[in-house]
Amino acid sequence: MNKNNTSSRHIAGINSVLNALERKNKINCLYIDKNKKSKRLESVIELAQSKNIVLYRVDKLKLDLMAVGSKHQGVIAELDEQPHQSLTLEAILNRDNPLILVLDSIQDPHNLGACLRSAAAANVDAVILPKNRSAGITPVVSKVASGGAEMLPIFTETNLSRTLEKIADKQLWSVALTGHTEQTIYDTDFQQISIIIMGNEEKGISQNLLQHADYHARIPMPGNIESLNVSVATGIVLFEALRQRQKSTTITG
Amino acid sequence: MNKNNTSSRHIAGINSVLNALERKNKINCLYIDKNKKSKRLESVIELAQSKNIVLYRVDKLKLDLMAVGSKHQGVIAELDEQPHQSLTLEAILNRDNPLILVLDSIQDPHNLGACLRSAAAANVDAVILPKNRSAGITPVVSKVASGGAEMLPIFTETNLSRTLEKIADKQLWSVALTGHTEQTIYDTDFQQISIIIMGNEEKGISQNLLQHADYHARIPMPGNIESLNVSVATGIVLFEALRQRQKSTTITG
Repeated sequence: MNKNNTSSRHIAGINSVLNALERKNKINCLYIDKNKKSKRLESVIELAQSKNIVLYRVDKLKLDLMAVGSKHQGVIAELDEQPHQSLTLEAILNRDNPLILVLDSIQDPHNLGACLRSAAAANVDAVILPKNRSAGITPVVSKVASGGAEMLPIFTETNLSRTLEKIADKQLWSVALTGHTEQTIYDTDFQQISIIIMGNEEKGISQNLLQHADYHARIPMPGNIESLNVSVATGIVLFEALRQRQKSTTITG
Repeated sequence: MNKNNTSSRHIAGINSVLNALERKNKINCLYIDKNKKSKRLESVIELAQSKNIVLYRVDKLKLDLMAVGSKHQGVIAELDEQPHQSLTLEAILNRDNPLILVLDSIQDPHNLGACLRSAAAANVDAVILPKNRSAGITPVVSKVASGGAEMLPIFTETNLSRTLEKIADKQLWSVALTGHTEQTIYDTDFQQISIIIMGNEEKGISQNLLQHADYHARIPMPGNIESLNVSVATGIVLFEALRQRQKSTTITG
């Protein structure tokens, strides 16, 4: 089991950087486009200065190179360290009835980012990704996740099947989302289930992982559409799990 | 009230075209990249031939121009006519307890496409968009919607507030999704509500529309994230509405 967390070293874009600043992520420094002026950029700069964060005013080209294709809107934050780096998956599995999202080989960075945003909104305990068959936590993913990628403990595992076996040893139950089953997510008892497994955009969940899941469930769809977008499906399942766990009575969001 | 439906004249990409072919959308002809060979493209061609649809083998450049930026994967279908063109919003409002999605000024084509895909999966009766403040039903939107844009009656209205007033005259209740309210979607009785209003990615729902909604509701979020992606939030609300309406017992998807 690979205990290293994956996280972007850079956060790009005004909203994402503001989120990181407000959430007290450990930020090493900000890189600011030295030729750009805007009220929103000024508010980022003021907030960073109030927190004594070092600012570097640089050419737009440097920001473009750091952002690797994502929109930086004139600002990139460099994280001081990996958040959650002292947390192990083992420790999270030992929590009381944790909720963990396994994303099997999501290919599209926007989908992965939106899944992480939903996972952070749902306050899951951890996200598990396969090491080799998934989009990485790139700046694009991080930006779409709107801060979620930095808030969540994210574990990349070499062998997801083996990870699920270790999870099963902890007496934690898992459900795999698939269209090829009768049971719906509404028939599924998420108070007893800790692991939610979502699959690849095209191929769904790999056969190997499907076999490791304790339950299979589908989102019932009356319309004549084959499947939902994977990030939408992930949001629906996560919030159905929360609804059943009745966290809704104690939350503030 | 503008009774015209909006719909793309072209559907791009293998999955979307396959969906359209299987759903018996009226397809005028297919344009195929004459230099591209693939098994999946062959299966599109075979299905089209079995339905006696005219095929034109053209240069990739022509497809690129028709697709206007969306990935066509070597195939574009041209629709013969606007689906649902004989349906009026009035007729849909007169149905028994209809479910209608109002999308107030969604700007991002991927978000709009994903919303339409979810709306089609949830089998809503109609989608209403503002005429001037929304992404249009472009080929990108149509492709992301995976056939949803062609399956749904979509109405573009010049003045959404006035449309909501007319809907209220029909004794149909509406709920606006917003973070700024105590009531959650789980406290909301979707058996009594026909109109679900979702807002713009940045600004939410316009004040004017908020005032016209009978109820305001939020998706409760325990995590420290300000909001969900609008297409994820739309999916969560639509499927919560379906769950409450207990359609889940009679559906096949």
